[in-house]
This record gives sequence, C-alpha cells and structure tokens, in this order.
Amino acid sequence: MSAVESRLVGPVRVVGVGLLGTSIALGLRARGVDVILSDASPTNVSIAIDYGAGRRAGDADEPQLIVVCVPPDVTASVIVRELSAYPRAVVTDVASVKKPVLDAVAAAGGDLSRYVGSHPLAGREKGGPMSGRADLFVGRPWVVAGHEGISYQAAAAVDDLILDLGATLVEMTAEEHDTSVALISHAPQVISTLMARRLIDAPAAAVGLAGGGVRDVTRIAASDPALWVQILGANAAPTASVLRALRDDLDEVIGALESSGASDTAWRRTVAEALAAGNAGVERLPGKHGQDRRYAQLVVMVDDAPGELARLFAEVGEEGVNLEDLRLEHSPGAQIGLAELSVLPETVDKLTAALAARGWRIAG
Amino acid sequence: MSAVESRLVGPVRVVGVGLLGTSIALGLRARGVDVILSDASPTNVSIAIDYGAGRRAGDADEPQLIVVCVPPDVTASVIVRELSAYPRAVVTDVASVKKPVLDAVAAAGGDLSRYVGSHPLAGREKGGPMSGRADLFVGRPWVVAGHEGISYQAAAAVDDLILDLGATLVEMTAEEHDTSVALISHAPQVISTLMARRLIDAPAAAVGLAGGGVRDVTRIAASDPALWVQILGANAAPTASVLRALRDDLDEVIGALESSGASDTAWRRTVAEALAAGNAGVERLPGKHGQDRRYAQLVVMVDDAPGELARLFAEVGEEGVNLEDLRLEHSPGAQIGLAELSVLPETVDKLTAALAARGWRIAG
Repeated sequence: MSAVESRLVGPVRVVGVGLLGTSIALGLRARGVDVILSDASPTNVSIAIDYGAGRRAGDADEPQLIVVCVPPDVTASVIVRELSAYPRAVVTDVASVKKPVLDAVAAAGGDLSRYVGSHPLAGREKGGPMSGRADLFVGRPWVVAGHEGISYQAAAAVDDLILDLGATLVEMTAEEHDTSVALISHAPQVISTLMARRLIDAPAAAVGLAGGGVRDVTRIAASDPALWVQILGANAAPTASVLRALRDDLDEVIGALESSGASDTAWRRTVAEALAAGNAGVERLPGKHGQDRRYAQLVVMVDDAPGELARLFAEVGEEGVNLEDLRLEHSPGAQIGLAELSVLPETVDKLTAALAARGWRIAG
Repeated sequence: MSAVESRLVGPVRVVGVGLLGTSIALGLRARGVDVILSDASPTNVSIAIDYGAGRRAGDADEPQLIVVCVPPDVTASVIVRELSAYPRAVVTDVASVKKPVLDAVAAAGGDLSRYVGSHPLAGREKGGPMSGRADLFVGRPWVVAGHEGISYQAAAAVDDLILDLGATLVEMTAEEHDTSVALISHAPQVISTLMARRLIDAPAAAVGLAGGGVRDVTRIAASDPALWVQILGANAAPTASVLRALRDDLDEVIGALESSGASDTAWRRTVAEALAAGNAGVERLPGKHGQDRRYAQLVVMVDDAPGELARLFAEVGEEGVNLEDLRLEHSPGAQIGLAELSVLPETVDKLTAALAARGWRIAG
C-alpha cells in the first residue's frame, strides 16, 4: 500500500462484510478512511470490526460512498434501499454481473445519477470476513460499468475507491462487461465443472493416471456451487452464447473423431484446425502464464526433504537472479520434486551453470 | 536414481530418440545398461549419443529388449519390423494409445508372445532429444497393457525397465488403458482447446480481465497440434464417448441457462447439480493439487524484486518447515506477487507467526 492519502473524504459505508467487503474496508482503513460496516449477519459485523475493518453504523452517518458487497441475487434490492436511505451518497456494487443489476435498479426507480456498478476481478477460494485482506485488489483489474445517467462527480468517488485499493481501473459498459466475463470467467467455470463431472464414476485406476493437465483444467470445478448458480443465472444469456459456440465446435470435433476410421482424411483437418485455434486462443491471454515466451525456463530437481526447496531459492537469490514465475511439480510417492523456474532469457545460461556448479541436478 | 544395479542384462535398443526415447536411454545408462540408439533422423542419433544416451547400432547386436518410442502413427509398423529383425528380443512401445497398436501388430502377424505395449504417463512441453532427462519417469505411473499372448518371462523385461527408471508399474488391459487416458488426458485436451479457441476473437479488454481460472483451464491448449491429431485419431472412439457425455451435460446446462428467466426454478436445480457434481469429480483426483485439504495454505506478499522470493524460501527453510506445494500469483503490472505456500497443518501457525515476525506481509 502506498502511503498517499486517500482522496475520499468519507465515511465509506460497506454493506456486506464477506471476503470482498471486508477486503475493501481493510484497504480503506489502511488509507485512514472512516469505514462503516453493515451486514445482515451481526456476527459478521462483529468479526469484521474485531478484524480492524471499520466501525458500526450510527444514526448520524452521512456516507460519501456506499459499496454494496452482498450476494448477486440481492444486490439490486440492496442498492435501491441504500440509494433511498442515503439520498446524498454515491452507491456502487461489486457484483460479478452488471447489466441485470443496472436494469433492476432502474426498474425499481433507483436514482441512477448516484449509482454506478463496478466489478473487481479479484477473489480467493476462501470466503468470509476472516479471509479479507487489504491488498486483495492490488494490481487487479476493476471494471467500472459507466452509464449515461451517472454524473462525472459521482463516478469520481468510485474511481478514488479503486485508486485507493491499488487496483487498475477498466471502463466498459455493463453489456461489454457481462459479455467479457461470460467469456473469460463464467464459460470456463462451466467447462471445468463439466469436465470434472466426468471423473465421478471413473475407476480408481483411471484417475490414478491423472497428471497436471487434467488437474489444471478441473481446478476451478472446486468452486462454491451456491455462489455460481447465482452468477450463472444472472449472466445466463451471454454465458449460454459462449457455451453454444463451444458446443458447436465440440460437435464438430466429436463428428470428426467418429469418422476418423473412414478413408478420407477430412476428420484430420477438422481436429488439427481446432487444436491450432486453441493454440492461437491461449496466446491471447495476458500475464506471465500466457506469455511464457518472454521468459526462459529451467527445471531443477529437488529432494522432498525440509529445507531443500528453500535452499534452492536462497541460492538462486545469491546468484542475483529474479524469479519471474515458478511451477512446482511433485508426483504422488516420488521422493523428488521438480521446480520449473522462469527467468529472463539473458540470465538462464548463467543461472543454469551456477546451480549445476552448486550441485543441483538440472533436469531441463 | 538409486544405485541398485539393473536386472536387465541388455543391450536395450531404443528406437526413436525424441523426448521419451532419450529419457529412457539416459535412465538406463545411469544404471549401467548397454543402450543402442536408433532413429529415422541420423542427426537425432548423433545428438543423443553426444548427450550420453547410448551408442550406435552394430551388426552383431542381440538386444534383450527393444523400446519403440516413435510417433503414434508409425508405432505399430516399427514394432512389427523390430519383432521381425530381432527374433529373440522382447519389444515394447510407449505410445499413448494401446489397443489400436496391439490390434495392428496382431493383424500384421507380429509375434505377440514377445510384444507388450506400455505407456509412461510422463512428458514435458518441450520435445526432442535435448529435452530428455534420466529422471523423467521417477514416481510417475507407467502402464503395462498386458494381454494373454505374452509370456511371463517376456513381460518381466518390461517390468525391469520400468523399475530401472523409477516409475510406478500399473497393470491394465489395452482397452482399460485407452478408456482411462481418454478420460484423464485426451478429453481434457479437447475441452481445453475448445475453450481457448473462444478467446481468438475476444476484444483485448475482455482478455485483459482474465485471471488464474481461465489460464488454468486453457493451459494445455498450447500443446502441439501435430502430435495431438495423431493421439486423438488413434483413440477416437473412447475420447468421443467421453466428449459425447460431456456434450449432453453441456446441452443440459445451456438449456437451463436459456430458461433461467422463466418463473419456475428447474433451471436452478440443473445448474446447481452440475456444479456439485463438478465438485465431487475434482475431489477424485489424486496428488497434491487434488488433495489440498491435507495441507494448510498461507499467502505471503513478495515484492517483485530480485532475491525477494529467494529470501522468503530461505527463511521458510530456516524455520525448518517443508513446502509441500507452492503457487505463485503475479498480476500484470503489479509490483507485488503472492506466494501461496502449502505446508503441513501442524506447522502453519508457527510458520505464519515466524514469517510475520521476520517482516513478511501475510496476505491470508
């Protein structure tokens, strides 16, 4: 957190002190902002207060900004209630779907000149106030779903909030937001879930052969069903649109595989084109994992003993090399793990030689 | 590698010195086995010999065991050729599909009493002899696809090979193998590919919102299309069977999402059941990532500066704690990375306190 003082004059009222609400409150408190906490659960409010996230609401509160962090299915009604209860406050929310919320607030007669929806692309697998952390949003995108009814001045308070929390402000319309998250979050969730579902009745011998690939594909299938039913329901049309296109591609691949015994080789072209298109698609993802070409990798074998991985990283540090990324691979039952280090290409030869000279087994 | 002497009397002839062949050869050489290298590419043979993987074939060679490590589409014909050229040798192969190979060898009149197919579940994203490493198979499953025509004595040489290389022998029929890998490898490849394909035409703003979830789901979409066309073609029927079941589930979810505006809530039950089934499926995966409950996690914030991550791991080591798993999360543009350390539950409180006392910011 930077020590720069917040431009928010406060107080900021946070409604809903789960993971996101508590994290927002903690981040604002770290900037010295007066934070008021509210939640349907008095227990959650008490926990969040003990956690240092803010104070209880008082009758004389005049919040500058209200951040609604409640579950998606009640977000719109809470926004409308807050707009009405605090007629001078700007209200935003952090729900992961934006158009249905905006429409519902408008339909209920909420004052749109003081409401602008937003969505921080941040989260953790663990929920609840105890999982909150002041730095949850640092460096993460935070979408502001602007609309024509919001005044520049009102929107500025939300911009200040995002700046305070160290996130990167991304402006798009509610529709653009919803189609974007359908593609990069909601459809992948469904696909991961459905792949994982196939494993339920698999023989133990089959799942015993599983490697890193299927683990990666199915990791987010462990997400909370109750939350995701709400998210998928709220963004049903854009998500279904992505899934229909994927289903058409899947039908094509299934058809190609079913005809792979035939004498003509059209099936082969279909499957190869799909695989090549997948290559091209994954290249579009930003970030370190999506741009591994920027770094060189080396793989070091590490005995599965206390301190061994620590010693490796200590010695990488002594060589003055910064790790850009890191993957640890460890097979069940193996006495040896593999640490894949990603470093700047100009450092890899030097580091490889140095680690080998220190006795490390370089596996690639 | 253990120093135990190999039970193979050798020589072992390795046909095809790509990643797998070279790794097998290196592993056997480390056990003192006489290894003969053969490849359609004289350049590859020279590289592998320079790499220490073995020697060139001679006219008087009498290999005990031949390991065929060529691309899937020529595996069966090379096996038949080797069975014929070396009438006293046992032959195995490492192709990732087993039933079509066995059938093709039988159809071509190959001597099945000396052939047994196998499949090491190991690999790397990089191919070629230079990527080979003696320890590639340590702790990984290695399937032997037994059949009734193979003699116990012949199969024993393949068992010795697997033992030598430190892998875990898994016995199943060729059919069981192919349906297993269709489920845990080939179908996930197709699904990851098709999800990644959807990203091709996405606006830059949309892919800019991508987080760890979609990255994990699409990581293996970066795999080599030429290789995967062969694998999928060779295991078309079992893979199509998994994909059809997944497609039916997908149709159900799409239908549910399309009817989510309706007054009845049947859609909600359908989606919730799919998500819960995904939870249950992912729980079946073995290994550290699939059993995170065995470990406790803590997240430490690390400045993106040389030596910082190294310092963290050095200090974890000084506290005497063994890292069981590790994830590094680093958002584009952020000056801070998050290192999620997985440790034994009984050590997490002590380690958290110790790292905090050393000045580390614990993020959860």
